[in-house]
Amino acid sequence: MINGVTMRTTVDKYILSALQEDITCEDVTTNAIMPVDRIGEVQLIAKQDGVLCGIDVFMRCFTIIDERVKFDIKKVDGDTIKNGELLATITGSISVLLSSERIALNYLQRMSGIATFTKSCVQQLEGFKTRLLDTRKTTPNMRFFEKYSVKVGGACNHRYNLTDGVLIKDNHIGAAGSVTKAIEMAREYAPFVRKIEVETESLDMVREAVAAGADIIMLDNMDNATMAEAVKICCGKAQTECSGNVTKDRLREIGEIGVDFVSSGALTYSAPLLDLSLKNLHVIK
Amino acid sequence: MINGVTMRTTVDKYILSALQEDITCEDVTTNAIMPVDRIGEVQLIAKQDGVLCGIDVFMRCFTIIDERVKFDIKKVDGDTIKNGELLATITGSISVLLSSERIALNYLQRMSGIATFTKSCVQQLEGFKTRLLDTRKTTPNMRFFEKYSVKVGGACNHRYNLTDGVLIKDNHIGAAGSVTKAIEMAREYAPFVRKIEVETESLDMVREAVAAGADIIMLDNMDNATMAEAVKICCGKAQTECSGNVTKDRLREIGEIGVDFVSSGALTYSAPLLDLSLKNLHVIK
Amino acid sequence: MINGVTMRTTVDKYILSALQEDITCEDVTTNAIMPVDRIGEVQLIAKQDGVLCGIDVFMRCFTIIDERVKFDIKKVDGDTIKNGELLATITGSISVLLSSERIALNYLQRMSGIATFTKSCVQQLEGFKTRLLDTRKTTPNMRFFEKYSVKVGGACNHRYNLTDGVLIKDNHIGAAGSVTKAIEMAREYAPFVRKIEVETESLDMVREAVAAGADIIMLDNMDNATMAEAVKICCGKAQTECSGNVTKDRLREIGEIGVDFVSSGALTYSAPLLDLSLKNLHVIK
Amino acid sequence: MINGVTMRTTVDKYILSALQEDITCEDVTTNAIMPVDRIGEVQLIAKQDGVLCGIDVFMRCFTIIDERVKFDIKKVDGDTIKNGELLATITGSISVLLSSERIALNYLQRMSGIATFTKSCVQQLEGFKTRLLDTRKTTPNMRFFEKYSVKVGGACNHRYNLTDGVLIKDNHIGAAGSVTKAIEMAREYAPFVRKIEVETESLDMVREAVAAGADIIMLDNMDNATMAEAVKICCGKAQTECSGNVTKDRLREIGEIGVDFVSSGALTYSAPLLDLSLKNLHVIK
Amino acid sequence: MINGVTMRTTVDKYILSALQEDITCEDVTTNAIMPVDRIGEVQLIAKQDGVLCGIDVFMRCFTIIDERVKFDIKKVDGDTIKNGELLATITGSISVLLSSERIALNYLQRMSGIATFTKSCVQQLEGFKTRLLDTRKTTPNMRFFEKYSVKVGGACNHRYNLTDGVLIKDNHIGAAGSVTKAIEMAREYAPFVRKIEVETESLDMVREAVAAGADIIMLDNMDNATMAEAVKICCGKAQTECSGNVTKDRLREIGEIGVDFVSSGALTYSAPLLDLSLKNLHVIK
Amino acid sequence: MINGVTMRTTVDKYILSALQEDITCEDVTTNAIMPVDRIGEVQLIAKQDGVLCGIDVFMRCFTIIDERVKFDIKKVDGDTIKNGELLATITGSISVLLSSERIALNYLQRMSGIATFTKSCVQQLEGFKTRLLDTRKTTPNMRFFEKYSVKVGGACNHRYNLTDGVLIKDNHIGAAGSVTKAIEMAREYAPFVRKIEVETESLDMVREAVAAGADIIMLDNMDNATMAEAVKICCGKAQTECSGNVTKDRLREIGEIGVDFVSSGALTYSAPLLDLSLKNLHVIK
Repeated sequence: MINGVTMRTTVDKYILSALQEDITCEDVTTNAIMPVDRIGEVQLIAKQDGVLCGIDVFMRCFTIIDERVKFDIKKVDGDTIKNGELLATITGSISVLLSSERIALNYLQRMSGIATFTKSCVQQLEGFKTRLLDTRKTTPNMRFFEKYSVKVGGACNHRYNLTDGVLIKDNHIGAAGSVTKAIEMAREYAPFVRKIEVETESLDMVREAVAAGADIIMLDNMDNATMAEAVKICCGKAQTECSGNVTKDRLREIGEIGVDFVSSGALTYSAPLLDLSLKNLHVIK
Repeated sequence: MINGVTMRTTVDKYILSALQEDITCEDVTTNAIMPVDRIGEVQLIAKQDGVLCGIDVFMRCFTIIDERVKFDIKKVDGDTIKNGELLATITGSISVLLSSERIALNYLQRMSGIATFTKSCVQQLEGFKTRLLDTRKTTPNMRFFEKYSVKVGGACNHRYNLTDGVLIKDNHIGAAGSVTKAIEMAREYAPFVRKIEVETESLDMVREAVAAGADIIMLDNMDNATMAEAVKICCGKAQTECSGNVTKDRLREIGEIGVDFVSSGALTYSAPLLDLSLKNLHVIK
Repeated sequence: MINGVTMRTTVDKYILSALQEDITCEDVTTNAIMPVDRIGEVQLIAKQDGVLCGIDVFMRCFTIIDERVKFDIKKVDGDTIKNGELLATITGSISVLLSSERIALNYLQRMSGIATFTKSCVQQLEGFKTRLLDTRKTTPNMRFFEKYSVKVGGACNHRYNLTDGVLIKDNHIGAAGSVTKAIEMAREYAPFVRKIEVETESLDMVREAVAAGADIIMLDNMDNATMAEAVKICCGKAQTECSGNVTKDRLREIGEIGVDFVSSGALTYSAPLLDLSLKNLHVIK
Repeated sequence: MINGVTMRTTVDKYILSALQEDITCEDVTTNAIMPVDRIGEVQLIAKQDGVLCGIDVFMRCFTIIDERVKFDIKKVDGDTIKNGELLATITGSISVLLSSERIALNYLQRMSGIATFTKSCVQQLEGFKTRLLDTRKTTPNMRFFEKYSVKVGGACNHRYNLTDGVLIKDNHIGAAGSVTKAIEMAREYAPFVRKIEVETESLDMVREAVAAGADIIMLDNMDNATMAEAVKICCGKAQTECSGNVTKDRLREIGEIGVDFVSSGALTYSAPLLDLSLKNLHVIK
Repeated sequence: MINGVTMRTTVDKYILSALQEDITCEDVTTNAIMPVDRIGEVQLIAKQDGVLCGIDVFMRCFTIIDERVKFDIKKVDGDTIKNGELLATITGSISVLLSSERIALNYLQRMSGIATFTKSCVQQLEGFKTRLLDTRKTTPNMRFFEKYSVKVGGACNHRYNLTDGVLIKDNHIGAAGSVTKAIEMAREYAPFVRKIEVETESLDMVREAVAAGADIIMLDNMDNATMAEAVKICCGKAQTECSGNVTKDRLREIGEIGVDFVSSGALTYSAPLLDLSLKNLHVIK
Repeated sequence: MINGVTMRTTVDKYILSALQEDITCEDVTTNAIMPVDRIGEVQLIAKQDGVLCGIDVFMRCFTIIDERVKFDIKKVDGDTIKNGELLATITGSISVLLSSERIALNYLQRMSGIATFTKSCVQQLEGFKTRLLDTRKTTPNMRFFEKYSVKVGGACNHRYNLTDGVLIKDNHIGAAGSVTKAIEMAREYAPFVRKIEVETESLDMVREAVAAGADIIMLDNMDNATMAEAVKICCGKAQTECSGNVTKDRLREIGEIGVDFVSSGALTYSAPLLDLSLKNLHVIK
């Protein structure tokens, strides 16, 4: 779940902005036809099997407008849901229900889609120690929502953004002069709680990075044999992350190689929406 | 293209927010390793065939940080691009190039992906009068970018949001009492520049909506035969929009029925990213 | 009334900004003299006959500061009010009552003034089909409030802003090359829910615009005879809007010409304030 | 003039908000018809005699969008202008000229209207020491613009808002227990740079306020004879401000009584717009 | 106390910003370890003697996240507190208690530190008419909090900022041409509620300022004898403010000279934090 | 230095807010006395020995208002400066120089004060491997500025905020049930780039934390003998951080114990301001 602290400090501003994107002045249809407001009830129904994710965000799309909207929640984040299943009943002002519906579903369907797809990927790695990671290839202004969904789907998060993780790439190495020099500069500069990760493209780079004390070695676009060799080099000295051309189909063979982590941007940018719907709106008083 | 007025009044706030999502304090890796800034050059390269879209947004991700970044642009929005093609050369502070790169690509790849997919759908309708529309099932805080990409791909935009279009759905009809009553209420209330669209699920509803003077009749989840009949009823009196279960494969048969418009949420939520990359960063002074 | 969705997504930001314009740090007089807060009651009294408008905005000026302020409302938007009449009783923290009073009245008096003036103009058109419209000549950051008041006064709203309506003016026609070309470009570009309006200055332009399929023809600064001729040309093919030099006194003769609409910026920029007052503040506990 | 410090810290946020109120996504007409941008020139012309006010705000409405817009300014704030006079020539991107035009004029016409009306009121007081003041009865989110216009028109500003002036009204006196006690509490509490003003309704209150050391005595809704007496009481000990039912016609007789100041809300809420227009837009390259 | 009006219009934006500075996405430790939220209780304990200040701000750091947090307050602003004393008990969601704790204390310790130090300075002036003032040398984005604390400590506030007080310094005098000219320009320009203060460095300047009608004369960096002479010159005609090199130790001798005010930036920038702590957090349900 | 990326994404919002705190409408003194703007020059002079820090922030306080202000910088962040030394010459609009002066100095003096004090503390640790850290006890809305200054002074930064570091405290351990359990939960939950730090109060806790695989062990309020023992336990398995009651005087003895890090909130909350001044403003054209 997303608790109140995270909601208020981080999430609320995106939700309000998304609602304002959809209503720049008023919901003209609803306001035309419902001059007098009523209390109504509507059901959230699954139209596909999958993993539910984002129910707190869904609810907040209504309560950020009107805190009197109430929810009878049957499923929470991470629960498996079945096509046709009733997930929640929502009660409140009908104008609020109608005006927030689309944005609430736009979040919930994307988040549940990512959790569902992530879970299916995580299942490919069952039996291996390798853990699945996301990347920074997220949709602008959706990073929190997408990374949270990856976690609900059972994978881990890579660094949240450029501020909270050191990842030394080829351009950084070029600028520093060498892998070793780059790692030294990062260790000198970065807050002491930071781990230092280095992107490597050859076994020589792996060896240099390990020797220089990198905490994590990214093995970028290596073939399986090279990766296996790299894992041996790092063993016990640094963690390894496989990156590049990672598809769901390749996950088992990557797991067999024994890397500690494998990262995939596709978790957040290729997951199909999960079909969910608000149905049976009716006046209750 | 997205002109300066739109950029400043509408787009800038999303781009700045997206950059701040990725840098909450500083780009710790770049700042560690490049204490002295240099001027560099980097190339934007296509890694897949498709339609380019979002080049102004891409550029703004750099210039909103530092207006001295310069671009030599080879392709503009709507241009067809080929795998391996050089699309632009970017010159500026290396720290800016590195820190904005990911967000710039996150926008450009999504927007180009939508334009590319939309164009392939529009081609299905060649030879028919039917025009393709998007929906409001867009990613939160991405609506402008996604709807613009649909237009660059050759399709039309449905209403932008709840404020700038009247679309009477079943819940509104229920609240008003009848299709006729709902249309009357909307015409009375809505600013006079608004067209009035009604969602219908049966030929009786179509007939009532036409009689009540609706400008556009949405034919929701109808089979082809019913739709054909609906088109006849509306002919010359109202425009028709086919909606519901619209896939790329079905577009030709929908075109044959002769509806004026067909709308598809999949244009914005199912388009795969177009693969693009920043390559060959090097110091030039 | 202004419902909760509109209030939260659109109105709140203006009200909070207006209160902060009036209190950049604290209400120094009230805070000096009332170190201990008390609960008080105050009455909203009409000091002039007119049409009440903006009571939800008035209330929100208090509740946005302190949601515990309560209202006993005797009149709502659109109601006719008489000099001396009690409109509402407000109960709450005296410091809130004192600090929000001026801004609450500043909104309510302007909005009621516009509704009152608009109603007097609408009465000039009684018996005619012609409907009265506002314009975009509104006070900066007051558009929502002013356009809403026009509607409460019984007139209709023209387009809300540059985004949600197409209005082709002489400069656009010049840029496009001709009326016909401009209309074609607009129809190609604009979201399909948009009607297309063209500003015309001669009967030739009217004829060309009708032939090109414009939905609405603005008859700009035409004399009555020319307008009458234009109405005949448009009849059944496009709606007509009279614009330019529209005064309250001229409304009857415009109505007689039979245009569909007449627009007047004066509705929002020339309406006198309606005199209203908060009286009889007293401590109740 | 409004200098750059005031513009950036205070004014810019209102102007940007006003432009966004008018363009929530794009200027659909201009963007439809002018896909390729051109450089154009347009003239600002007076259509009425008056006092120009707000030319910096007018210019900022364009430059906040595009700093390359240039101005050839013939008149500045405070200058007398004549019907038909050329006030400025503006050169820049035509899309910017078209999209910002309305908001730029909405500010300039209101501000010039207030300066013009204020000047005509100030002229009534020529030959008297009495100076004219505005009030806090300004349009929400327009206070800076309206108070600045009053000063350009030759009058003085009363306190800007509740924070920067102490004005003890009847409710405050009631809460404090007496005029004397209220003045003491304010003097104890308020920053030492503040003058203390007290609203009085009788000569007894005037005497008490003077005795308690008030800096300014507001004479609220007093008849001329009472006011004259009050002025004598205050003479040399406190300044006097006449307030309530102040119309332009009454200003001379108020001047004759010899109060130091007279305040009038009508300066900002009753001033008619000054008619100004942008004319002769044409492409220059 | 800081009442609700001040909190909502002025204070809330700083508190929310401070919380977001400390939580850019989530409190990762708390969220990791407390997946299920509980209700807890924690005590606010003094760890040093002093003057409490900022208890409303402290409480708002919790309630701005979750309005259900409750407080049992034993001491309020201005109260003397003793090392070890229980100041308040706070009850609410444990995740909110943990996540807001640091920011709440960061405010409360600074504010109480300033009030405590100010009080000790004010005591130096006991028996003299001289009153102690703060300056604008406050921490950026902390001015409200620091100036409020000065007042709670028993001193007075100088002007809040550049907008709400006229203080003519040497650069202004240079630009105007003379002290007399500068005072005239300020009196002409400044809203009439403003007092006019002039910074002087010699007795000649003092004499000129008094003659020109300044309300307050700042005696800048003068020795005691010169100051005493200046006080005589001003006597009954203007107030005097001693400024420059004011230390706590010098306050008594300044008091003896008989200036009306003495200002000290050290009140806000040299006050040590007061040690306060949240202790004994425990689950209550 | 603070580069352009950090300035735009992180710093600008605080600087603009600080300027608006000081100018809520206009700089009334400057605007009164300098109706015509001039170009002037002013010097930044050290009035005390120390370490300069914040020169980019200082400059930004002027250029965020007017980008035409120019600087001739003699010293940069980290440079040692001497009383009386010329640090920079600033040239630009005199109204901008006067209006931004105070805020620019308020930042620069605080930041230089922290860098100066930090450097003096770091010198205590010369010859030891122990590195000095800051804490989260920073001034609200000043964290970036204060932590940056600590780094310029030669110390390291602890975690920036609650989001980007895991620090398990006693309350977390209580909630989890044990040190071991808390570490496991954190490792499971936190992004994989995070190190895990645990606060310990006894050697048993140290042993358990090391065994559970904590990356960093905080030794909280331990006496020197206990700390020495703890360092032995951790040796080679986890890093150690001494915390609690750390004063400048105790740093040498802490260094002798051989902990890896020592953290001190006093670096940011007890550093005295460094005295700096803008002098010799004069018109140059």
